[in-house]
Amino acid sequence: MSTVEIERMEAGRITEARLAEIVFPGDTNHYGTIFGGRALALMDKAAFIVASRFARRAMVTACSERADFHAPVHQGELVELIARVVATGRTSVTVEVELIAEDLMSGERRLATRGRFVLVAVDADGKPTPVPAHTSPPNAATAAASGPQRPASFSGLP
Amino acid sequence: MSTVEIERMEAGRITEARLAEIVFPGDTNHYGTIFGGRALALMDKAAFIVASRFARRAMVTACSERADFHAPVHQGELVELIARVVATGRTSVTVEVELIAEDLMSGERRLATRGRFVLVAVDADGKPTPVPAHTSPPNAATAAASGPQRPASFSGLP
Amino acid sequence: MSTVEIERMEAGRITEARLAEIVFPGDTNHYGTIFGGRALALMDKAAFIVASRFARRAMVTACSERADFHAPVHQGELVELIARVVATGRTSVTVEVELIAEDLMSGERRLATRGRFVLVAVDADGKPTPVPAHTSPPNAATAAASGPQRPASFSGLP
Amino acid sequence: MSTVEIERMEAGRITEARLAEIVFPGDTNHYGTIFGGRALALMDKAAFIVASRFARRAMVTACSERADFHAPVHQGELVELIARVVATGRTSVTVEVELIAEDLMSGERRLATRGRFVLVAVDADGKPTPVPAHTSPPNAATAAASGPQRPASFSGLP
Amino acid sequence: MSTVEIERMEAGRITEARLAEIVFPGDTNHYGTIFGGRALALMDKAAFIVASRFARRAMVTACSERADFHAPVHQGELVELIARVVATGRTSVTVEVELIAEDLMSGERRLATRGRFVLVAVDADGKPTPVPAHTSPPNAATAAASGPQRPASFSGLP
Amino acid sequence: MSTVEIERMEAGRITEARLAEIVFPGDTNHYGTIFGGRALALMDKAAFIVASRFARRAMVTACSERADFHAPVHQGELVELIARVVATGRTSVTVEVELIAEDLMSGERRLATRGRFVLVAVDADGKPTPVPAHTSPPNAATAAASGPQRPASFSGLP
Repeated sequence: MSTVEIERMEAGRITEARLAEIVFPGDTNHYGTIFGGRALALMDKAAFIVASRFARRAMVTACSERADFHAPVHQGELVELIARVVATGRTSVTVEVELIAEDLMSGERRLATRGRFVLVAVDADGKPTPVPAHTSPPNAATAAASGPQRPASFSGLP
Repeated sequence: MSTVEIERMEAGRITEARLAEIVFPGDTNHYGTIFGGRALALMDKAAFIVASRFARRAMVTACSERADFHAPVHQGELVELIARVVATGRTSVTVEVELIAEDLMSGERRLATRGRFVLVAVDADGKPTPVPAHTSPPNAATAAASGPQRPASFSGLP
Repeated sequence: MSTVEIERMEAGRITEARLAEIVFPGDTNHYGTIFGGRALALMDKAAFIVASRFARRAMVTACSERADFHAPVHQGELVELIARVVATGRTSVTVEVELIAEDLMSGERRLATRGRFVLVAVDADGKPTPVPAHTSPPNAATAAASGPQRPASFSGLP
Repeated sequence: MSTVEIERMEAGRITEARLAEIVFPGDTNHYGTIFGGRALALMDKAAFIVASRFARRAMVTACSERADFHAPVHQGELVELIARVVATGRTSVTVEVELIAEDLMSGERRLATRGRFVLVAVDADGKPTPVPAHTSPPNAATAAASGPQRPASFSGLP
Repeated sequence: MSTVEIERMEAGRITEARLAEIVFPGDTNHYGTIFGGRALALMDKAAFIVASRFARRAMVTACSERADFHAPVHQGELVELIARVVATGRTSVTVEVELIAEDLMSGERRLATRGRFVLVAVDADGKPTPVPAHTSPPNAATAAASGPQRPASFSGLP
Repeated sequence: MSTVEIERMEAGRITEARLAEIVFPGDTNHYGTIFGGRALALMDKAAFIVASRFARRAMVTACSERADFHAPVHQGELVELIARVVATGRTSVTVEVELIAEDLMSGERRLATRGRFVLVAVDADGKPTPVPAHTSPPNAATAAASGPQRPASFSGLP
């Protein structure tokens, strides 16, 4: 076996996670579009991942905020989830998640829904425990938008 | 094969659905409690079922409202979902869903979370289509609470 | 977080459970009807839930009795499972389960299959342990049939 | 791409199928043993496969006969399913299925349960359609038992 | 409960495992053919089972060798996996796996892909631990080794 | 409903995809580490996604190359998959995939395995069809490494 390289990504540094999934038959209702609940579950998973990587703590979902479903997502399409830490409390992390549908053949992308989740860090006894503070740099939005996959039109928070 | 009995449950009559699930290892994070997203998916499924049975139309989720997670649900517990049609628009049905966790050994039950979903009826072209009106009888809450499984303390809408 | 209400449902009181599921593509064979084995698994789950809630003990399936499949259930249909405790032994609970298919658009319902399962209560060492006795009240069938969702034509036990 | 070799296995010739599965966490209850319903689903799948290969027709389960669960099967164990065509009617195939649990470390095997399933061949309209006749050779049991994996002690039908 | 028969299959004796699966909608891409990754997962499962039964040790996959996908496998087809121990090292077992697709209606079979997996036996601390030696009968190894990976015996039924 | 923004990502532009997954109990063997086959399935999914987004064609896996598993991945860990288009033929796309395990609490990351997949573009009749050419810019590796999530030590292609 080859050498295994190791590195460490510390708490407080990662503020964005991206996940991609294909919409399978089992994810859809009988008109071939994704169930709202399946979309919410994917969004919560993305929120959990970015909050866990940000806080390096065991995180549990405390709240999911209102999510509107703008556009149906069809079987066979790609779903990209972009989750960003947007705020922190003493023991909580607030994450905004965009669910973007992409037609794999045409490359057309559309924002299907956007939501926010609040996750709380818990210790081994299940008690809330502190998280690092989120300090957005002045040009954070700009920096995030400069990456090659950033769709500039999903311009973020209200 | 024996005779198969048939009956029909028409639109506008069913306003409550109950689902029960066991929380399996695959539904939980690594501290053994249910993922928020899994809970949301079950709640949306319950909302979809009652809205479909109420409207007898193809229903799609248009919105999930804010849901707070009051209490963790553990692996091996029973989850009961109680979904009720609480309002209708011309083409939409609003459903309130309670997710109740029950310890199967002790019988202790607790409200883990409650949410609301708005579902829209769509025709074969995906266009919104009318639903029956929901007209709660004056003593609806009382009637519903009289059933043997009704937990009186989950007393409904704010 | 809000106040969490608590109540307890003791052993020997709950004798009926209802579960609902949508038939998904993954539940069906390639002619679009539910696999017999998937139906049996859902029926056993319903039997497990009602037996566990009745006995408040760890329950294991000891026997599944003959089940005839009267009518195919199609993808996109609703499956409702109605499980009732019908008898008890010293350490066992017998549950009858009806699987009713419902066309969500027309509301038409039909009994797809009916089966019986015997479950045994086990203690922490896996040894059989006593369960409460099931004492059907003289007018039990009538009482059960009075609920709003009770399809009168599925008239119960032979 | 290389040449792809082809052969054909005709109707009426295959009368046994073997499947193996590992028991995963999601297959078990919270005491770590397989759900009865999961076992029944695996048995029906094995019956479906051998009946389909025997008849070369679309097969649907018409009946599952009584199955007793003799011994619990634990997470991490191997489950071997042995399904055999034991009789045919004009349009039906009867399959006996044994579910054998095997401890992968010790190699110890035990019969966990045995059941029978009747499957009916259906045509494109869902109407019953004839199947080949099953003609057990005089020494069928002997022949079947001679294979290297045949546990002689599971000696067949009552 | 009836008597439970027991037997034991010792290490070093089992060198072949067969698994069968139906290709479900959730296993396929949106053109209705099985995902390469799903096929690889099934092949690894078959390799794991035969290596575990051969060595009677906890086995972990150390390497999957090149696999070419010769022919697409369609939804509703049967997949048969034939896994054979072809070599052993001091602590490793090499398994060759063929994935054969079978049209259940016509009985036509074709080799869809073939691969090799090396699995290592590990003890309770995760350290490599010895496995029995694989001693192929004089003409078995030659036959197996003759095509690059092709077992000449793919040619059919007993 | 709000305005839905749309944009298009054309063929030949996207050459990297990142996916993240949590390792669930159902993904692991009974020593709590991920199955090799599950890892291969995730890697193939990542390869499929980036090849589909690169070529904007229906892609099927033609070959998976040798993959060595360097380090076990445990339940509860994060798996990040980084898939990059590294070469193209007239109708094929070659993708290299790294599977990196990350301990969510410590942030420690390690390369668990790396593999290559060749995918072929097919038209509606399943015939190979051309893909865009992959022309790595001279400073491609540098550019890719500059992103905030790029682990510099996984330095890429041989």
